[in-house]
Amino acid sequence: MTSKKLVNSVAGCADDALAGLVACNPNLQLLQGHRVALRSDLDSLKGRVALLSGGGSGHEPAHAGFIGKGMLTGVIAGAVFTSPAVGSILAAIRAVAQAGTVGTLLIVKNYTGDRLNFGLAREQARAEGIPVEMVVIGDDSAFTVLKKAGRRGLCGTVLIHKVAGALAEAGVGLEEIAKQVNVVAKAMGIHGEAGVRRIKMATADEIVKLMLDHMTNTTNASHVPVQPGSSVVMMVNNLGGLSFLELGIIADATVRSLEGRGVKIARALVGTFMSALEMPGISLTLLLVDEPLLKLIDAETTAAAWPNVAAVSITGRKRSRVAPAEPQEAPDSTAAGGSASKRMALVLERVCSTLLGLEEHLNALDRAAGDGDCGTTHSRAARAIQEWLKEGPPPASPAQLLSKLSVLLLEKMGGSSGALYGLFLTAAAQPLKAKTSLPAWSAAMDAGLEAMQKYGKAAPGDRTMLDSLWAAGQELQAWKSPGADLLQVLTKAVKSAEAAAEATKNMEAGAGRASYISSARLEQPDPGAVAAAAILRAILEVLQS
Amino acid sequence: MTSKKLVNSVAGCADDALAGLVACNPNLQLLQGHRVALRSDLDSLKGRVALLSGGGSGHEPAHAGFIGKGMLTGVIAGAVFTSPAVGSILAAIRAVAQAGTVGTLLIVKNYTGDRLNFGLAREQARAEGIPVEMVVIGDDSAFTVLKKAGRRGLCGTVLIHKVAGALAEAGVGLEEIAKQVNVVAKAMGIHGEAGVRRIKMATADEIVKLMLDHMTNTTNASHVPVQPGSSVVMMVNNLGGLSFLELGIIADATVRSLEGRGVKIARALVGTFMSALEMPGISLTLLLVDEPLLKLIDAETTAAAWPNVAAVSITGRKRSRVAPAEPQEAPDSTAAGGSASKRMALVLERVCSTLLGLEEHLNALDRAAGDGDCGTTHSRAARAIQEWLKEGPPPASPAQLLSKLSVLLLEKMGGSSGALYGLFLTAAAQPLKAKTSLPAWSAAMDAGLEAMQKYGKAAPGDRTMLDSLWAAGQELQAWKSPGADLLQVLTKAVKSAEAAAEATKNMEAGAGRASYISSARLEQPDPGAVAAAAILRAILEVLQS
Repeated sequence: MTSKKLVNSVAGCADDALAGLVACNPNLQLLQGHRVALRSDLDSLKGRVALLSGGGSGHEPAHAGFIGKGMLTGVIAGAVFTSPAVGSILAAIRAVAQAGTVGTLLIVKNYTGDRLNFGLAREQARAEGIPVEMVVIGDDSAFTVLKKAGRRGLCGTVLIHKVAGALAEAGVGLEEIAKQVNVVAKAMGIHGEAGVRRIKMATADEIVKLMLDHMTNTTNASHVPVQPGSSVVMMVNNLGGLSFLELGIIADATVRSLEGRGVKIARALVGTFMSALEMPGISLTLLLVDEPLLKLIDAETTAAAWPNVAAVSITGRKRSRVAPAEPQEAPDSTAAGGSASKRMALVLERVCSTLLGLEEHLNALDRAAGDGDCGTTHSRAARAIQEWLKEGPPPASPAQLLSKLSVLLLEKMGGSSGALYGLFLTAAAQPLKAKTSLPAWSAAMDAGLEAMQKYGKAAPGDRTMLDSLWAAGQELQAWKSPGADLLQVLTKAVKSAEAAAEATKNMEAGAGRASYISSARLEQPDPGAVAAAAILRAILEVLQS
Repeated sequence: MTSKKLVNSVAGCADDALAGLVACNPNLQLLQGHRVALRSDLDSLKGRVALLSGGGSGHEPAHAGFIGKGMLTGVIAGAVFTSPAVGSILAAIRAVAQAGTVGTLLIVKNYTGDRLNFGLAREQARAEGIPVEMVVIGDDSAFTVLKKAGRRGLCGTVLIHKVAGALAEAGVGLEEIAKQVNVVAKAMGIHGEAGVRRIKMATADEIVKLMLDHMTNTTNASHVPVQPGSSVVMMVNNLGGLSFLELGIIADATVRSLEGRGVKIARALVGTFMSALEMPGISLTLLLVDEPLLKLIDAETTAAAWPNVAAVSITGRKRSRVAPAEPQEAPDSTAAGGSASKRMALVLERVCSTLLGLEEHLNALDRAAGDGDCGTTHSRAARAIQEWLKEGPPPASPAQLLSKLSVLLLEKMGGSSGALYGLFLTAAAQPLKAKTSLPAWSAAMDAGLEAMQKYGKAAPGDRTMLDSLWAAGQELQAWKSPGADLLQVLTKAVKSAEAAAEATKNMEAGAGRASYISSARLEQPDPGAVAAAAILRAILEVLQS
């Protein structure tokens, strides 16, 4: 390992990692003087069979993550990618025997070093009179012809931990567990890693198909005898460095490919079970199951790294639900195409032509502090409104009009501006549902401003479009007084908005994209504030005419 | 993302990943037409508060992994690192409302896009009469001075999901959940990622200290008010590309550092909770807890990505247990230093000098097919035995002698040869415990050969040291016949072993390191077989003299 790793020392990293795992998991204890983790409740296992596994470090969460009630009794870890020491394996066997267990099953992955060291510890323990059995797991389906050394032991070993753990928890005896585990191990296969042959990077679907084809190919001596109608547990394992996004994509491809072959997926385990440091790859495991075996897979465990798996078949269940229909709109209480509707259309047309005329000016202002696209964004909104107006007269109800515009801007204007105008309009529409009096319009402005500040986190003075709108809103409070004049108040509001837009020249940006730019570069007014003031002036001009 | 990712298409990757997650988790369903996952048992939530969260994809398992009883009701996912669509958020709110929930809490991370889009959906849903509250989580402690935009929302959001989920499951109302969640969010801080300042790669201890110093520094406006005596939940989160080995090391360093500051760690969560694709880094989260809050953290959940956490305090429990003592050896029944012991010493000395004399020859043979260190390995064993003999006379009991030699070779010879000789001697010692007659010695040879084959997976003919030993063992069967002659049989056995060693010249390697080499390159006998035959000859020579 290079010094780029987050470790304290290369020599101590296996010890430190195990210490961290034990420190953070109250179900585990270290065995003093050894790289061994055991269940903390060891002394409650009198009369039960103990299950020990282990291997080189660097494959976390295997195996210590699988210690717990219903899975392993303990594990012995070696240095990184190195078999555990015989003395530590023997110490673990002695410790579980001393705690009153009636025998120990060693679950060993098929690697020469692991076989020899676990085997030697087994022989020594037996010489001391401790009943010890050993199963060697070779689940690798990557080879076409069986080698003398047999199939390597890989991620399927975790399923063996689960099955053996459930049997031991149920009080089954040593020989019987060993026998059953050997049968289960034969119904399992895995594929992954560097694998059979180097292939150019392909899509997830192609890679999954290739792996499943190979694993289930009956001319491959190590194939898994999966056929249409077979039930399997599938396991998609992150070898360490793959993103969980990709893991989900591979899981999706695997489910589709298996079900396309007529295979029933009983359970699916997706996650990091046995890694190889941060290797960027996956392995796929298939285990043929019947009901009794599935019960063992589903049995309860406290092991930290065993996932929460619902005891429900993956194949055959409904994976989606129908989205609820959008609520019916209340019919427009005022006739569309009537005089109110016509006036609304005139206002909107003037707003649109104003914004289109400002496009270059707004873009130029925005180039000083942003993307230079503020004018483009507002023109996009204007053109969307123009298109919409061609479809027919707008609703005469102000609440419905603002709601419609909200949806339109959100979809067609896009970006933060679209969302902010959408928020403003949605909130502003609410007070106008009941009444459309001048006080209601003032309240609408208040509601819009409040929503904009609440979700946008900008305040007046932050050099945003809120500055003009807020200034206008202050003047529009006058509409709440009895006898207030529509145009007189609105004229004052527009002037105030324009002054506020101009004043943004001297403001430091406190929110929005311009806040990332040094204030020294900002010598122009904020384009969003200028646009908002121009919209208000356009509205005023139509109402005055 | 580059084309090196395991995806089907960049455009579809967020959809595919969510589909995979839902396909593999029967507790989840997709909402048709939207990138939304919901609890499958939605219709059982009548009268409860619904909890929705979400954000850009690429942060898996957040948030869909935290859907389940006792956590989230559903999530809305955006494209990679992009806020979810308002229409989908609104569709999710409508779906949970239609299922009969009495209100919805939106749990939103403090990013502008998320705030605006969830905010807008909230306003629209409220306009439809659906009670919707929203909490914005900003748990980032990485900044010294608070920015206007506030603290970013990071991994601590997962703890909020847990707390809110437990409250909703307990039937608490919408406003009360929102209130409590806001209080909890203020007692939380996180640090990680690119962070405050670029530092040269340091040790895990140094990095953890730096992060904790910053997070708890009271002059940092976003600090977590952790003091000696405080109780915390700590969370060590893999940002995606870090190995689990390193994660354990960081967890160990964090526990030591916090406890060194007098902080009580109530619970520790270690794993991948909120990633950033495969970013190689970690984040640390601290949440100040009291007993009622801890109960919510401990409450049951079926969410797939929430870890199995024991409801036991991390600080204060015993993290190790004493290893059992080695069993007492039975006293040597024959006097050490007696004539039998002296003869054993002579045999061993001759074996050692023979092996030392063969060092260069064995290395030369090994260079053709292995590491070229077979002679060195055997010399190391010989010198270890010589050193041991200097300490005093060897045990006269053959069983004890072989057991002693087994331990010695395992420790000092090392490698596969040490383990194989260790296995051979341990197994061979067993039949000699009861008797030391010639039949017992033959049985000892059989037991040794059996163990070697069983755990080493080599058979006669595989071009290993087993070839010579096995040939000798066949001849030693004669010792089992009444009246067999020690030296006559042994002489035949040694000759047979030497012939077998010579015959390995023509064998293809079937096991061991030489099996990786093309057979065409093997024109010399196997050095392990030559060494084993030489050991037997040395024994014979001493017994003959």
